[in-house]
Parts: sequence; C-alpha cells; structure tokens
Amino acid sequence: MGIIRRKDLEVSRNPQRLDVQVRQMDLDVQWIVGFVDGEGCFHVRVNPHRQMAIGYQVLPEFTVVQHRRDVKVLYALKAYFDCGVVRVNHGDRMAYRVRSIHHLAERICPFFIKHSLKTSKSIDFLKFRDVVLLCQSGDHLKEEGLLKIQRIASQMNRGRTR
Amino acid sequence: MGIIRRKDLEVSRNPQRLDVQVRQMDLDVQWIVGFVDGEGCFHVRVNPHRQMAIGYQVLPEFTVVQHRRDVKVLYALKAYFDCGVVRVNHGDRMAYRVRSIHHLAERICPFFIKHSLKTSKSIDFLKFRDVVLLCQSGDHLKEEGLLKIQRIASQMNRGRTR
Repeated sequence: MGIIRRKDLEVSRNPQRLDVQVRQMDLDVQWIVGFVDGEGCFHVRVNPHRQMAIGYQVLPEFTVVQHRRDVKVLYALKAYFDCGVVRVNHGDRMAYRVRSIHHLAERICPFFIKHSLKTSKSIDFLKFRDVVLLCQSGDHLKEEGLLKIQRIASQMNRGRTR
Repeated sequence: MGIIRRKDLEVSRNPQRLDVQVRQMDLDVQWIVGFVDGEGCFHVRVNPHRQMAIGYQVLPEFTVVQHRRDVKVLYALKAYFDCGVVRVNHGDRMAYRVRSIHHLAERICPFFIKHSLKTSKSIDFLKFRDVVLLCQSGDHLKEEGLLKIQRIASQMNRGRTR
C-alpha cells in the first residue's frame, strides 16, 4: 500500500503533469506586458571574475518574482517563453528567471520590442536590450564594450534619473 | 507679460489637456488585468465610526500604487474606468483609488468579473465584490451584514490562508 501511495505522489508531482496544468493557463500577450510592467525586472550585473580574461562577467537577467502561492503564473510565463527557470527567490517568494543570452536575445527582447511596456520600465528594458545585444556580439569580452555596458548598467533601475 | 505667461501655464496644466494626453495611452483590457494582477489591491477596512448608527463604517477600496514617474499609467486607468481619483499615496508614490460603492459595483467589479485575474488576487477580488454588493444593498448598515463583512474582511489579503 505504501508503494502505491508513493507512486501516486510521484505522478501528482511529475513535472510533466505540472507543465500540462500550467499550459492550460492561457496567457494573453497583453496580460504578460501588464504583469511585467508591474512585477518584472530587467537587470544587469557586472561582477569581477578572475577566470574571465577581461576580469569581469556581465550578467543580464530578466526576472518576475511572486509569492509561492502564485507559482503557477511563473510556470505559465516559463511555458509561454519556452525558456528560463522557476526557482526559490528568498523565503516564500519564487522567481521566474531568464539568464541565457541566447534566450534573452531571441525570445524575451523581441517580445517586448513587439509589445511595448507602458510604464517607465520600458526605458530599462531598452537599455537592457542594448546590453544583451552587446553580449550576443561578444563585445562584453572587449574593453570598449565592457565600459559601454558598465555605463548603461549604471543608468538602469535605481541608477537612472527619476 | 506676467498674465500671458500665467495663462499659458494654466493651459498646460489644464486637467482636460492631461486627460487628452492620457487617453492617448491605449490600455488593452488584458494589459489592465495583468497590471492589476501585479500592482492592484482590493481592500476592505471596517472602522469604528461614532456617527454611524451601527457604530462602524465599511470602506471597500480598489487601489493601484505607482512611483510618481509612472503617474500617467494611473491617469490612464482613471480614464479607462471613468471613475476614481489619482492622489499622492506617500512620499514619491501615487495611487489610483476608487472608493465610491456605486463605481466599485458598476464599473470595477463587473470588469474583473468579465476579465478574470490570473493570480490568487482573484480570491481577494471575489471576497471584495461580496462586500461591495452587501454595501450596495445596504446590508452594511445592519448587524448581520456588518458581521458578515467583518468575517469576509478578516479572510482577505494577509488574513487569508497562504
């Protein structure tokens, strides 16, 4: 009996099943734009990194954070964009996160170019996209490109004039 | 010259002109749902009130708060729903706020009944709507209705099981 129960549990926790459930949450394009206008974040970190020839690592990241009770919305975003991960952020908060330059350049950025954000987050997004494109072309590995990225990153989010 | 300048100022600050500007921000129905899923709040306060025969005042309120740099989005919501006010919330944050029972019952609630929220905020909204309907029918002025409202309000937002 114990084994049967455990099997049931495995089935109900099967990631494939979860995927099927969240895919049933039909996300409208404009709902995504509105939700990201509210809850999304386009962020660029430039960290010192010994193993990089240039001494720094550029990490652009798109995140949406929610309380764990709404994790299904994050899985629905993951399913919609078909990239990224859903992970614990901190405490009872979860995050949908896309870090891959390829996925940022090919899926996330084109979406928000086609469907404009309506808040001032659109300003951050355009700067973020500039960084993603510089990374995609390999300019983040050259001094000139890195300086450009550092300048852009310093003007984003809290760094820009309010 | 002074008078002419002042007149120009009046024209540029004319609320009608502002209305025209914000109406040009075309809010999609699903963008509103997504943005409210992220940033909206359905809240019910039950305050002691000496001048009310029953001793309490029921105050349902729909709010969306933003940094003042995005106040145009709040004015666009006000224009869309054609009700409510945009006011300073605290510090550099502004709020779009609807408190009128009539406007909540006739404009805000029907919108979110027709266009469902996708996060667990929908649970709060349905409780909020119950309170609005009780207020609309005058039940908040009777002991039984007030007790019902107090019970509902205690289960909303932070009060509900997570």
